[in-house]
Amino acid sequence: MGVDPGLTRCGISTVQAGRGRSVLPVAVGVIRTDASDDLSTRLLDISMKIDEWMDEYHPDMLAIERVFERGVVSTVMHTAHAVGVIIVCAARRDIPVYMYTPSEVKKAVSGNGRADKKQVTAMVTRVLGLAEPPRPADAADALALAICHCWRAPMLGLSGGQNPGWSASRHK
Amino acid sequence: MGVDPGLTRCGISTVQAGRGRSVLPVAVGVIRTDASDDLSTRLLDISMKIDEWMDEYHPDMLAIERVFERGVVSTVMHTAHAVGVIIVCAARRDIPVYMYTPSEVKKAVSGNGRADKKQVTAMVTRVLGLAEPPRPADAADALALAICHCWRAPMLGLSGGQNPGWSASRHK
Repeated sequence: MGVDPGLTRCGISTVQAGRGRSVLPVAVGVIRTDASDDLSTRLLDISMKIDEWMDEYHPDMLAIERVFERGVVSTVMHTAHAVGVIIVCAARRDIPVYMYTPSEVKKAVSGNGRADKKQVTAMVTRVLGLAEPPRPADAADALALAICHCWRAPMLGLSGGQNPGWSASRHK
Repeated sequence: MGVDPGLTRCGISTVQAGRGRSVLPVAVGVIRTDASDDLSTRLLDISMKIDEWMDEYHPDMLAIERVFERGVVSTVMHTAHAVGVIIVCAARRDIPVYMYTPSEVKKAVSGNGRADKKQVTAMVTRVLGLAEPPRPADAADALALAICHCWRAPMLGLSGGQNPGWSASRHK
């Protein structure tokens, strides 16, 4: 499961790692919360919708974007609140959580840590063999995170092999 | 209920608003998480301990510190994740959440938005009529937040009267 966290729009995706670098699309969606609601109502909405998604797709692991202190303070903090909420949803189910920075995701998916949204969306579309690009951008980013994790954790595509980089990507 | 959020140490308190400016101490504590655990384990610990506290004290409302982008990035983000988790604990129980900046708390409790920890602890001790200062600082800060909220929401000390400033302090 890949999540591009946000309070107003939160991209969520499920993919299935195949052999080698093949990744199969399973589902993608966007959780939206109402900006006129209280912060607590919005975070609860996200928590419940993440739970529903996990109930439906039973993910083995969660890849989520690491939040940095860039951009508007309140937006960054709101996103960081949402990340905490989403991580706890995973922790309650014993689903391990892996965090990736935007540039790690871009680099893994497109080979370039500074790729723009269009390039990332094009690569996601190609890798997953989709008939058309996923929309909105949050959905494409959630898929990119999931693909990034599949490729960064090669044991998924093999048969239980150990990857030395694996534990390093499980952040504290 | 007042919470001074943090991933490693999280101050928690319960007070009872009395008549006028009187505030009675009920309980105070600190949730600690193990720095050698995964972020997800630590956030889940916080979530469960906040739930236990709420089960025991049935708070009517939650006052929590608003996180700013000061200090070490990872610490700020960890605290912001914890805040999201704690807010959802309140939201699940329909407990309204109010956020205050450190300077709002200091100003409300000591009259000075730049008061140091010692001054805040001294005022908390006096207001609550404690025999000795609450320790550690996170515990004192959690009490200061609760007192701040009691004083900023005068309807608590009266008999159900409306306070025009009330809704303004319930942040989005």
